[in-house]
Amino acid sequence: MDEAIRTLRAVRHFGPDPVPRTTVEELIDAARWTGSARNRQPWRFIAVTDPALRGDLSRLGSFAVHLAAAPLVLVLATQDNGFSDTEFDMGRVTQSLCLAAASIGLGSCPTTLHPASNVTRAAELLNLPPGLLPRHAIALGYPDPGNAPSPNAIPTGRLALPDLLTWRT
Amino acid sequence: MDEAIRTLRAVRHFGPDPVPRTTVEELIDAARWTGSARNRQPWRFIAVTDPALRGDLSRLGSFAVHLAAAPLVLVLATQDNGFSDTEFDMGRVTQSLCLAAASIGLGSCPTTLHPASNVTRAAELLNLPPGLLPRHAIALGYPDPGNAPSPNAIPTGRLALPDLLTWRT
Repeated sequence: MDEAIRTLRAVRHFGPDPVPRTTVEELIDAARWTGSARNRQPWRFIAVTDPALRGDLSRLGSFAVHLAAAPLVLVLATQDNGFSDTEFDMGRVTQSLCLAAASIGLGSCPTTLHPASNVTRAAELLNLPPGLLPRHAIALGYPDPGNAPSPNAIPTGRLALPDLLTWRT
Repeated sequence: MDEAIRTLRAVRHFGPDPVPRTTVEELIDAARWTGSARNRQPWRFIAVTDPALRGDLSRLGSFAVHLAAAPLVLVLATQDNGFSDTEFDMGRVTQSLCLAAASIGLGSCPTTLHPASNVTRAAELLNLPPGLLPRHAIALGYPDPGNAPSPNAIPTGRLALPDLLTWRT
């Protein structure tokens, strides 16, 4: 498990193979066991394969362009009730999903839809029930081996252990 | 991996064995590879074994009482810069930590410190640098096999797949 956590990387370039419906169901069926504050399970998932809809979603965030070419976009919607732990819990279930995806050979990349007007627009495009807000989406697909992650403005690597951990004994 | 994600449960009752320092370092060394928005890595970790400090922390949240008896409390501090994805990213790293802990036999239970005045108080108790806010903490220890999770007011179980997933094809 440590190795899976260490080696998980965002994948933004995918091959053409679709993600089978049963595979998506398997991912959700694992991730739904993720813990949440007061067991609220604030997450709902909308699996989007429709190319036009994926293209629309890809224009609703500064770092969402990869949603257009991903075979599948898993939109994460939350109950809009202002509970302070909702975003924290959405992060937990996202990590469960991305780790589960990697374990069966799928690449993934979470992204945030923003600003709020774009979240509202995404809810309209997805025809969501009132009160469900799609603030995050995960691109899913089989990694394109011929297309390594492209350089971008985001720094790479990670902080070292001594920069991260202190003790109170 | 799916099985690890499905079977992770919050553990609030621990045996007396301490969590070795090298084990905590191993957990952080895995979790530090978790992805975050713009690779900001907003997380810093404070490992607390001091019993008095754990007791103080256990009184700074409605569901924090289990921090007092845990052999180790891993406080998660964030940069207080108002970046909208910080809480989401803290949830991601928390899930990495709890899964990594379970894979080596450790039980864990995340909790939230609140309200804001208690977060400020925790920062004072931990003597954190300005700008670091300890909003979350994870109790860590070896599960007490003789002490099953006690019943409480929180509903158990999880929503079923059809309640969670819809499609747009």
